[in-house]
Amino acid sequence: MRNIKLTIEYDGTDYFGWQIQKRKPTIQGEIKKVLERILKEKIRLTGAARTDSGVHALGQVANFKTTNEKLSTESLNKALNSLLPSDIVIKEVKEVPHSFHARYSAKSKIYRYQILNQFFPRALERRCSWHIPGPLHWRKITEANKYFVGKHDFSLFSVSGSSRKNKQCTVRDFRIRKVKNLYVLQIEANYFLYKMVRRIVGALIEVGRGKIEPEYISVLLHGKASTLRARTAPPHGLFLIKVKY
Amino acid sequence: MRNIKLTIEYDGTDYFGWQIQKRKPTIQGEIKKVLERILKEKIRLTGAARTDSGVHALGQVANFKTTNEKLSTESLNKALNSLLPSDIVIKEVKEVPHSFHARYSAKSKIYRYQILNQFFPRALERRCSWHIPGPLHWRKITEANKYFVGKHDFSLFSVSGSSRKNKQCTVRDFRIRKVKNLYVLQIEANYFLYKMVRRIVGALIEVGRGKIEPEYISVLLHGKASTLRARTAPPHGLFLIKVKY
Repeated sequence: MRNIKLTIEYDGTDYFGWQIQKRKPTIQGEIKKVLERILKEKIRLTGAARTDSGVHALGQVANFKTTNEKLSTESLNKALNSLLPSDIVIKEVKEVPHSFHARYSAKSKIYRYQILNQFFPRALERRCSWHIPGPLHWRKITEANKYFVGKHDFSLFSVSGSSRKNKQCTVRDFRIRKVKNLYVLQIEANYFLYKMVRRIVGALIEVGRGKIEPEYISVLLHGKASTLRARTAPPHGLFLIKVKY
Repeated sequence: MRNIKLTIEYDGTDYFGWQIQKRKPTIQGEIKKVLERILKEKIRLTGAARTDSGVHALGQVANFKTTNEKLSTESLNKALNSLLPSDIVIKEVKEVPHSFHARYSAKSKIYRYQILNQFFPRALERRCSWHIPGPLHWRKITEANKYFVGKHDFSLFSVSGSSRKNKQCTVRDFRIRKVKNLYVLQIEANYFLYKMVRRIVGALIEVGRGKIEPEYISVLLHGKASTLRARTAPPHGLFLIKVKY
Protein backbone atom coordinates (compact mmCIF):
# COMPACT_ATOMS: atom_id res chain seq x y z
CA MET A 1 0.00 0.00 0.00
CA ARG A 2 1.40 3.38 -1.01
CA ASN A 3 0.24 6.79 0.21
CA ILE A 4 0.26 9.35 -2.63
CA LYS A 5 0.15 13.13 -2.29
CA LEU A 6 -1.15 15.31 -5.12
CA THR A 7 -0.59 19.06 -5.52
CA ILE A 8 -3.37 20.51 -7.64
CA GLU A 9 -4.13 23.70 -9.55
CA TYR A 10 -7.63 24.41 -10.78
CA ASP A 11 -9.89 27.03 -12.25
CA GLY A 12 -13.01 26.53 -10.13
CA THR A 13 -15.35 28.52 -12.40
CA ASP A 14 -17.11 25.55 -13.91
CA TYR A 15 -17.21 23.28 -10.81
CA PHE A 16 -19.45 22.87 -7.80
CA GLY A 17 -16.45 23.08 -5.48
CA TRP A 18 -14.02 20.45 -4.28
CA GLN A 19 -16.32 17.97 -2.57
CA ILE A 20 -17.88 15.19 -4.59
CA GLN A 21 -21.61 15.48 -5.33
CA LYS A 22 -23.96 13.35 -7.32
CA ARG A 23 -24.58 14.45 -10.90
CA LYS A 24 -22.58 17.68 -10.49
CA PRO A 25 -19.03 18.30 -11.69
CA THR A 26 -16.63 18.70 -8.74
CA ILE A 27 -12.85 18.76 -8.53
CA GLN A 28 -12.68 15.78 -6.18
CA GLY A 29 -15.12 13.88 -8.39
CA GLU A 30 -13.11 14.49 -11.58
CA ILE A 31 -9.79 13.48 -10.03
CA LYS A 32 -11.23 10.41 -8.28
CA LYS A 33 -12.83 9.23 -11.53
CA VAL A 34 -9.56 9.56 -13.47
CA LEU A 35 -7.51 7.94 -10.67
CA GLU A 36 -9.87 4.94 -10.57
CA ARG A 37 -9.63 4.64 -14.33
CA ILE A 38 -5.81 4.62 -14.22
CA LEU A 39 -5.37 2.44 -11.12
CA LYS A 40 -8.37 0.16 -11.67
CA GLU A 41 -9.37 0.19 -8.00
CA LYS A 42 -11.66 2.21 -5.71
CA ILE A 43 -9.93 5.36 -4.49
CA ARG A 44 -10.67 7.43 -1.41
CA LEU A 45 -9.33 10.91 -2.10
CA THR A 46 -8.85 13.30 0.84
CA GLY A 47 -8.43 17.03 0.17
CA ALA A 48 -6.71 19.54 2.45
CA ALA A 49 -9.55 22.03 2.02
CA ARG A 50 -13.11 21.73 0.80
CA THR A 51 -13.08 24.76 -1.46
CA ASP A 52 -16.53 26.08 -2.35
CA SER A 53 -18.18 26.30 -5.72
CA GLY A 54 -16.29 28.77 -7.92
CA VAL A 55 -13.16 28.97 -5.72
CA HIS A 56 -9.79 28.39 -7.44
CA ALA A 57 -6.57 26.73 -6.32
CA LEU A 58 -2.91 27.09 -7.17
CA GLY A 59 -1.82 24.58 -4.54
CA GLN A 60 -4.62 22.40 -3.24
CA VAL A 61 -3.27 19.16 -1.72
CA ALA A 62 -4.93 15.76 -1.62
CA ASN A 63 -3.84 12.22 -0.77
CA PHE A 64 -5.01 8.67 -1.39
CA LYS A 65 -3.80 5.12 -0.78
CA THR A 66 -3.26 2.61 -3.56
CA THR A 67 -2.32 -1.07 -3.77
CA ASN A 68 -0.53 -0.33 -7.05
CA GLU A 69 3.18 -0.68 -6.35
CA LYS A 70 4.41 -0.43 -9.93
CA LEU A 71 3.30 2.80 -11.51
CA SER A 72 5.89 5.55 -10.99
CA THR A 73 4.76 8.90 -9.64
CA GLU A 74 6.00 10.56 -12.88
CA SER A 75 3.90 8.23 -15.04
CA LEU A 76 0.88 8.72 -12.81
CA ASN A 77 1.30 12.50 -13.04
CA LYS A 78 1.45 12.38 -16.85
CA ALA A 79 -1.51 10.01 -17.07
CA LEU A 80 -3.60 12.22 -14.76
CA ASN A 81 -2.91 15.39 -16.73
CA SER A 82 -3.60 13.73 -20.05
CA LEU A 83 -7.00 12.48 -18.84
CA LEU A 84 -8.17 15.39 -16.67
CA PRO A 85 -10.01 18.36 -18.19
CA SER A 86 -7.73 21.33 -18.91
CA ASP A 87 -9.03 23.38 -15.97
CA ILE A 88 -7.60 20.87 -13.48
CA VAL A 89 -3.83 20.26 -13.48
CA ILE A 90 -1.84 17.99 -11.16
CA LYS A 91 1.36 19.91 -10.46
CA GLU A 92 3.08 17.18 -8.47
CA VAL A 93 2.62 13.54 -7.48
CA LYS A 94 4.71 12.34 -4.56
CA GLU A 95 4.89 9.23 -2.41
CA VAL A 96 4.59 10.14 1.27
CA PRO A 97 4.70 8.25 4.61
CA HIS A 98 1.57 6.32 5.58
CA SER A 99 0.84 8.77 8.39
CA PHE A 100 0.41 11.70 5.96
CA HIS A 101 -3.17 13.02 5.83
CA ALA A 102 -3.88 15.97 3.52
CA ARG A 103 -6.22 17.64 6.01
CA TYR A 104 -5.05 16.60 9.48
CA SER A 105 -1.33 16.90 8.78
CA ALA A 106 -1.65 20.48 7.50
CA LYS A 107 0.17 23.05 9.64
CA SER A 108 -1.17 26.10 7.84
CA LYS A 109 -2.83 27.25 4.63
CA ILE A 110 -2.41 30.35 2.50
CA TYR A 111 -5.36 31.89 0.70
CA ARG A 112 -5.44 34.83 -1.71
CA TYR A 113 -8.39 37.07 -2.47
CA GLN A 114 -8.43 39.41 -5.48
CA ILE A 115 -10.47 42.60 -5.66
CA LEU A 116 -10.69 44.76 -8.77
CA ASN A 117 -11.46 48.25 -7.52
CA GLN A 118 -12.27 50.46 -10.51
CA PHE A 119 -15.45 51.72 -12.10
CA PHE A 120 -15.69 49.30 -15.00
CA PRO A 121 -14.96 45.57 -14.77
CA ARG A 122 -12.17 43.91 -16.73
CA ALA A 123 -13.05 41.22 -19.27
CA LEU A 124 -9.89 39.25 -18.61
CA GLU A 125 -10.13 39.42 -14.80
CA ARG A 126 -13.81 38.60 -14.46
CA ARG A 127 -13.35 34.93 -13.53
CA CYS A 128 -10.74 35.58 -10.84
CA SER A 129 -11.61 38.78 -8.97
CA TRP A 130 -14.42 40.52 -7.14
CA HIS A 131 -15.26 43.71 -9.01
CA ILE A 132 -16.12 46.62 -6.72
CA PRO A 133 -16.85 49.76 -8.76
CA GLY A 134 -17.21 52.28 -5.92
CA PRO A 135 -14.29 53.97 -4.13
CA LEU A 136 -12.79 52.20 -1.10
CA HIS A 137 -10.59 53.61 1.68
CA TRP A 138 -7.63 51.30 1.14
CA ARG A 139 -5.64 53.08 3.84
CA LYS A 140 -8.31 52.07 6.35
CA ILE A 141 -8.44 48.53 5.00
CA THR A 142 -4.67 48.13 5.42
CA GLU A 143 -5.08 49.39 8.98
CA ALA A 144 -7.94 47.00 9.70
CA ASN A 145 -6.36 43.86 8.29
CA LYS A 146 -3.56 43.99 10.88
CA TYR A 147 -6.07 43.23 13.68
CA PHE A 148 -6.61 39.77 12.26
CA VAL A 149 -3.02 38.68 12.83
CA GLY A 150 -2.61 36.53 15.94
CA LYS A 151 -4.77 34.00 17.79
CA HIS A 152 -8.45 34.93 17.96
CA ASP A 153 -11.93 33.51 18.16
CA PHE A 154 -13.24 33.76 14.59
CA SER A 155 -16.84 32.75 15.40
CA LEU A 156 -18.22 35.93 13.83
CA PHE A 157 -16.14 35.31 10.71
CA SER A 158 -17.66 31.97 9.96
CA VAL A 159 -21.13 30.72 9.15
CA SER A 160 -23.16 27.91 10.61
CA GLY A 161 -22.11 24.73 8.94
CA SER A 162 -18.55 24.95 10.23
CA SER A 163 -18.04 21.48 11.67
CA ARG A 164 -15.25 22.44 14.03
CA LYS A 165 -16.25 23.36 17.59
CA ASN A 166 -13.05 25.20 18.43
CA LYS A 167 -13.33 28.59 16.72
CA GLN A 168 -9.81 29.70 17.68
CA CYS A 169 -7.54 30.24 14.71
CA THR A 170 -4.08 31.74 14.47
CA VAL A 171 -3.52 34.10 11.57
CA ARG A 172 0.22 34.04 10.90
CA ASP A 173 0.36 36.63 8.16
CA PHE A 174 -1.98 38.94 6.30
CA ARG A 175 -0.68 41.25 3.58
CA ILE A 176 -2.18 43.37 0.84
CA ARG A 177 -0.46 44.34 -2.39
CA LYS A 178 -1.70 46.29 -5.36
CA VAL A 179 -1.13 45.74 -9.06
CA LYS A 180 -2.79 48.64 -10.89
CA ASN A 181 -6.37 48.50 -9.59
CA LEU A 182 -6.21 44.87 -8.60
CA TYR A 183 -5.80 44.42 -4.84
CA VAL A 184 -4.37 41.10 -3.74
CA LEU A 185 -5.08 40.09 -0.12
CA GLN A 186 -3.03 37.15 1.11
CA ILE A 187 -3.69 35.46 4.44
CA GLU A 188 -2.00 32.55 6.19
CA ALA A 189 -3.55 30.77 9.18
CA ASN A 190 -3.20 27.44 10.94
CA TYR A 191 -6.89 26.76 10.35
CA PHE A 192 -9.74 28.38 8.45
CA LEU A 193 -13.37 28.01 9.50
CA TYR A 194 -16.09 27.58 6.87
CA LYS A 195 -16.21 30.69 4.61
CA MET A 196 -13.75 32.48 6.93
CA VAL A 197 -11.65 34.18 4.25
CA ARG A 198 -14.71 35.42 2.40
CA ARG A 199 -16.25 36.71 5.65
CA ILE A 200 -12.99 38.50 6.55
CA VAL A 201 -12.85 40.10 3.11
CA GLY A 202 -16.51 41.07 3.43
CA ALA A 203 -15.78 42.80 6.75
CA LEU A 204 -12.76 44.62 5.28
CA ILE A 205 -14.91 45.92 2.45
CA GLU A 206 -17.31 47.36 5.06
CA VAL A 207 -14.29 49.14 6.52
CA GLY A 208 -13.30 50.35 3.05
CA ARG A 209 -16.80 51.70 2.51
CA GLY A 210 -16.65 53.59 5.79
CA LYS A 211 -19.48 51.56 7.34
CA ILE A 212 -17.30 50.34 10.21
CA GLU A 213 -14.05 51.70 11.63
CA PRO A 214 -10.82 49.65 11.46
CA GLU A 215 -10.83 49.33 15.28
CA TYR A 216 -14.18 47.59 15.17
CA ILE A 217 -12.43 44.52 13.74
CA SER A 218 -10.75 44.18 17.13
CA VAL A 219 -14.16 44.38 18.84
CA LEU A 220 -15.49 41.63 16.57
CA LEU A 221 -12.46 39.43 17.29
CA HIS A 222 -12.78 39.82 21.06
CA GLY A 223 -16.39 38.65 21.17
CA LYS A 224 -17.66 42.07 22.18
CA ALA A 225 -20.15 42.21 19.32
CA SER A 226 -22.85 39.66 18.74
CA THR A 227 -23.00 39.73 14.99
CA LEU A 228 -21.18 40.96 11.90
CA ARG A 229 -23.34 42.52 9.25
CA ALA A 230 -21.29 42.24 6.11
CA ARG A 231 -21.65 40.58 2.78
CA THR A 232 -19.65 37.38 2.38
CA ALA A 233 -17.26 38.08 -0.51
CA PRO A 234 -18.13 36.08 -3.65
CA PRO A 235 -16.19 32.85 -4.31
CA HIS A 236 -14.60 33.69 -7.67
CA GLY A 237 -12.03 36.07 -6.12
CA LEU A 238 -10.66 33.35 -3.83
CA PHE A 239 -7.63 31.10 -4.39
CA LEU A 240 -6.15 28.39 -2.18
CA ILE A 241 -2.47 29.14 -2.74
CA LYS A 242 -0.56 26.69 -0.58
CA VAL A 243 -0.90 24.11 2.16
CA LYS A 244 2.07 23.84 4.51
CA TYR A 245 2.97 20.60 6.31
CA MET B 1 -23.28 63.53 -36.71
CA ARG B 2 -20.75 62.55 -34.06
CA ASN B 3 -17.75 60.27 -34.50
CA ILE B 4 -17.28 58.03 -31.45
CA LYS B 5 -14.16 56.09 -30.52
CA LEU B 6 -14.35 52.99 -28.30
CA THR B 7 -11.47 51.35 -26.45
CA ILE B 8 -12.29 47.71 -25.85
CA GLU B 9 -11.04 44.82 -23.71
CA TYR B 10 -12.16 41.27 -24.44
CA ASP B 11 -11.57 37.64 -23.65
CA GLY B 12 -11.70 36.17 -27.15
CA THR B 13 -12.05 32.53 -26.01
CA ASP B 14 -15.73 32.20 -26.80
CA TYR B 15 -15.84 34.32 -29.99
CA PHE B 16 -15.18 33.75 -33.66
CA GLY B 17 -12.89 36.77 -33.74
CA TRP B 18 -13.60 40.45 -34.24
CA GLN B 19 -15.30 40.50 -37.63
CA ILE B 20 -19.04 40.04 -37.84
CA GLN B 21 -20.31 36.73 -39.20
CA LYS B 22 -23.76 35.33 -39.64
CA ARG B 23 -25.02 33.08 -36.86
CA LYS B 24 -21.67 33.11 -35.02
CA PRO B 25 -20.79 35.19 -31.95
CA THR B 26 -18.18 37.84 -32.79
CA ILE B 27 -16.90 40.86 -30.88
CA GLN B 28 -17.93 43.32 -33.60
CA GLY B 29 -21.33 41.65 -33.84
CA GLU B 30 -22.00 41.87 -30.10
CA ILE B 31 -20.98 45.53 -29.82
CA LYS B 32 -22.87 46.56 -32.98
CA LYS B 33 -26.02 44.83 -31.72
CA VAL B 34 -25.88 46.61 -28.36
CA LEU B 35 -25.04 49.98 -29.95
CA GLU B 36 -28.03 49.71 -32.29
CA ARG B 37 -30.23 48.82 -29.36
CA ILE B 38 -29.08 51.87 -27.38
CA LEU B 39 -28.98 54.37 -30.26
CA LYS B 40 -31.94 52.99 -32.22
CA GLU B 41 -30.22 53.42 -35.59
CA LYS B 42 -28.05 51.31 -37.91
CA ILE B 43 -24.40 51.45 -36.87
CA ARG B 44 -21.33 50.80 -38.97
CA LEU B 45 -18.56 49.83 -36.55
CA THR B 46 -14.94 49.93 -37.74
CA GLY B 47 -12.26 48.10 -35.76
CA ALA B 48 -8.54 48.92 -35.75
CA ALA B 49 -7.63 45.25 -36.15
CA ARG B 50 -9.56 42.20 -37.23
CA THR B 51 -8.41 39.89 -34.47
CA ASP B 52 -8.85 36.19 -35.22
CA SER B 53 -10.99 33.66 -33.44
CA GLY B 54 -9.70 33.14 -29.89
CA VAL B 55 -7.44 36.23 -29.83
CA HIS B 56 -7.85 38.61 -26.86
CA ALA B 57 -7.61 42.38 -26.53
CA LEU B 58 -6.72 44.80 -23.76
CA GLY B 59 -6.95 47.83 -26.03
CA GLN B 60 -8.78 47.19 -29.29
CA VAL B 61 -10.09 50.43 -30.79
CA ALA B 62 -13.21 50.94 -32.91
CA ASN B 63 -15.20 53.91 -34.15
CA PHE B 64 -18.68 54.63 -35.49
CA LYS B 65 -20.79 57.60 -36.49
CA THR B 66 -24.11 58.44 -34.89
CA THR B 67 -26.83 61.00 -35.44
CA ASN B 68 -27.52 60.95 -31.70
CA GLU B 69 -26.33 64.30 -30.35
CA LYS B 70 -27.74 63.97 -26.84
CA LEU B 71 -26.38 60.89 -25.12
CA SER B 72 -23.18 61.68 -23.21
CA THR B 73 -20.13 59.48 -23.74
CA GLU B 74 -20.24 58.53 -20.03
CA SER B 75 -23.86 57.39 -20.28
CA LEU B 76 -23.14 55.48 -23.47
CA ASN B 77 -20.17 53.77 -21.80
CA LYS B 78 -22.29 52.68 -18.83
CA ALA B 79 -25.14 51.52 -21.06
CA LEU B 80 -22.76 49.49 -23.23
CA ASN B 81 -21.13 47.73 -20.28
CA SER B 82 -24.45 46.95 -18.66
CA LEU B 83 -25.75 45.33 -21.85
CA LEU B 84 -22.63 43.61 -23.19
CA PRO B 85 -21.65 40.11 -22.03
CA SER B 86 -19.04 40.12 -19.24
CA ASP B 87 -16.21 39.00 -21.54
CA ILE B 88 -16.41 42.26 -23.51
CA VAL B 89 -15.79 45.55 -21.67
CA ILE B 90 -15.74 49.05 -23.12
CA LYS B 91 -12.91 50.81 -21.28
CA GLU B 92 -13.47 54.24 -22.79
CA VAL B 93 -15.94 56.10 -25.02
CA LYS B 94 -14.68 59.35 -26.56
CA GLU B 95 -15.91 61.79 -29.15
CA VAL B 96 -13.27 62.31 -31.85
CA PRO B 97 -12.91 64.47 -34.99
CA HIS B 98 -14.80 63.32 -38.08
CA SER B 99 -11.56 62.41 -39.82
CA PHE B 100 -10.71 59.75 -37.23
CA HIS B 101 -10.79 56.21 -38.62
CA ALA B 102 -9.94 53.35 -36.23
CA ARG B 103 -7.97 51.45 -38.87
CA TYR B 104 -6.55 54.06 -41.25
CA SER B 105 -5.60 56.59 -38.59
CA ALA B 106 -3.58 54.08 -36.58
CA LYS B 107 0.14 54.88 -36.39
CA SER B 108 1.17 51.64 -34.71
CA LYS B 109 -0.15 48.68 -32.76
CA ILE B 110 1.24 46.71 -29.86
CA TYR B 111 0.63 42.98 -29.56
CA ARG B 112 1.60 40.61 -26.78
CA TYR B 113 2.09 36.85 -27.05
CA GLN B 114 2.28 34.62 -23.97
CA ILE B 115 4.10 31.29 -23.88
CA LEU B 116 4.05 28.98 -20.89
CA ASN B 117 7.26 26.96 -21.10
CA GLN B 118 7.14 24.19 -18.50
CA PHE B 119 6.36 20.51 -18.60
CA PHE B 120 2.79 20.60 -17.30
CA PRO B 121 0.20 23.19 -18.32
CA ARG B 122 -1.38 25.61 -15.84
CA ALA B 123 -5.12 25.46 -15.26
CA LEU B 124 -5.40 29.20 -14.70
CA GLU B 125 -3.27 30.19 -17.72
CA ARG B 126 -4.80 27.82 -20.24
CA ARG B 127 -7.04 30.40 -21.94
CA CYS B 128 -4.31 33.01 -22.36
CA SER B 129 -1.04 31.29 -23.21
CA TRP B 130 0.52 28.77 -25.58
CA HIS B 131 1.77 25.84 -23.52
CA ILE B 132 5.05 24.41 -24.80
CA PRO B 133 6.20 21.52 -22.57
CA GLY B 134 9.62 20.88 -24.12
CA PRO B 135 12.77 22.89 -23.35
CA LEU B 136 13.47 25.99 -25.46
CA HIS B 137 16.73 27.91 -25.94
CA TRP B 138 15.49 31.26 -24.68
CA ARG B 139 18.93 32.79 -25.09
CA LYS B 140 18.72 32.04 -28.82
CA ILE B 141 15.16 33.33 -29.00
CA THR B 142 16.17 36.65 -27.42
CA GLU B 143 18.98 36.85 -29.97
CA ALA B 144 16.66 36.09 -32.87
CA ASN B 145 13.88 38.48 -31.97
CA LYS B 146 16.21 41.49 -32.41
CA TYR B 147 16.42 40.83 -36.17
CA PHE B 148 12.76 41.73 -36.54
CA VAL B 149 13.25 45.31 -35.37
CA GLY B 150 13.35 47.78 -38.28
CA LYS B 151 11.75 47.99 -41.72
CA HIS B 152 11.51 44.67 -43.52
CA ASP B 153 9.49 42.73 -46.05
CA PHE B 154 7.37 40.39 -43.92
CA SER B 155 5.97 38.35 -46.85
CA LEU B 156 7.20 35.10 -45.34
CA PHE B 157 5.64 36.01 -42.00
CA SER B 158 2.15 36.30 -43.36
CA VAL B 159 -0.27 33.94 -45.03
CA SER B 160 -2.28 34.26 -48.20
CA GLY B 161 -5.38 36.22 -47.41
CA SER B 162 -3.48 39.33 -46.40
CA SER B 163 -5.26 42.01 -48.40
CA ARG B 164 -2.41 44.49 -48.36
CA LYS B 165 -0.05 44.40 -51.35
CA ASN B 166 2.78 46.24 -49.65
CA LYS B 167 4.44 43.70 -47.34
CA GLN B 168 6.85 46.23 -45.81
CA CYS B 169 6.31 46.75 -42.09
CA THR B 170 8.37 48.61 -39.53
CA VAL B 171 8.81 46.87 -36.21
CA ARG B 172 9.49 49.62 -33.69
CA ASP B 173 10.07 47.49 -30.61
CA PHE B 174 10.21 43.83 -29.69
CA ARG B 175 10.90 42.75 -26.13
CA ILE B 176 10.65 39.57 -24.13
CA ARG B 177 10.16 39.35 -20.38
CA LYS B 178 9.72 36.38 -18.13
CA VAL B 179 7.44 35.88 -15.13
CA LYS B 180 8.27 32.47 -13.66
CA ASN B 181 7.81 30.16 -16.66
CA LEU B 182 5.53 32.50 -18.54
CA TYR B 183 7.34 34.30 -21.37
CA VAL B 184 5.74 37.50 -22.55
CA LEU B 185 6.70 38.66 -26.05
CA GLN B 186 5.65 42.22 -26.87
CA ILE B 187 5.95 43.68 -30.35
CA GLU B 188 5.11 47.09 -31.75
CA ALA B 189 4.88 47.79 -35.49
CA ASN B 190 3.32 50.38 -37.78
CA TYR B 191 1.38 47.63 -39.53
CA PHE B 192 0.81 43.91 -39.08
CA LEU B 193 0.03 41.59 -41.98
CA TYR B 194 -2.53 38.81 -41.57
CA LYS B 195 -1.34 36.35 -38.87
CA MET B 196 2.04 38.11 -38.73
CA VAL B 197 2.53 38.01 -34.95
CA ARG B 198 1.61 34.34 -34.77
CA ARG B 199 3.96 33.54 -37.69
CA ILE B 200 6.80 35.48 -36.03
CA VAL B 201 6.22 33.62 -32.75
CA GLY B 202 6.09 30.34 -34.67
CA ALA B 203 9.48 31.11 -36.25
CA LEU B 204 10.99 32.06 -32.87
CA ILE B 205 9.85 28.75 -31.43
CA GLU B 206 11.71 26.98 -34.27
CA VAL B 207 14.78 28.93 -33.16
CA GLY B 208 14.14 27.90 -29.56
CA ARG B 209 13.88 24.28 -30.59
CA GLY B 210 17.20 24.50 -32.40
CA LYS B 211 15.62 23.84 -35.79
CA ILE B 212 16.85 27.14 -37.24
CA GLU B 213 19.64 29.46 -36.12
CA PRO B 214 18.88 33.02 -34.92
CA GLU B 215 20.71 34.44 -37.98
CA TYR B 216 18.29 32.66 -40.28
CA ILE B 217 15.61 35.17 -39.25
CA SER B 218 17.68 37.79 -41.07
CA VAL B 219 17.76 35.56 -44.17
CA LEU B 220 13.98 35.20 -44.05
CA LEU B 221 13.53 38.95 -43.69
CA HIS B 222 15.79 39.74 -46.65
CA GLY B 223 13.90 37.55 -49.08
CA LYS B 224 16.76 35.10 -49.41
CA ALA B 225 14.59 32.12 -48.50
CA SER B 226 11.48 31.12 -50.38
CA THR B 227 9.44 29.74 -47.55
CA LEU B 228 9.27 29.52 -43.76
CA ARG B 229 8.43 26.13 -42.37
CA ALA B 230 7.09 26.86 -38.93
CA ARG B 231 3.88 26.32 -37.11
CA THR B 232 1.71 29.42 -36.79
CA ALA B 233 1.37 29.99 -33.04
CA PRO B 234 -2.16 29.31 -31.75
CA PRO B 235 -4.49 32.30 -31.27
CA HIS B 236 -5.20 32.00 -27.55
CA GLY B 237 -1.74 33.30 -26.53
CA LEU B 238 -2.24 36.55 -28.46
CA PHE B 239 -3.44 39.92 -27.13
CA LEU B 240 -3.94 43.22 -28.94
CA ILE B 241 -2.58 45.56 -26.25
CA LYS B 242 -2.78 49.03 -27.69
CA VAL B 243 -3.42 51.02 -30.85
CA LYS B 244 -1.47 54.29 -31.14
CA TYR B 245 -2.77 57.27 -33.12
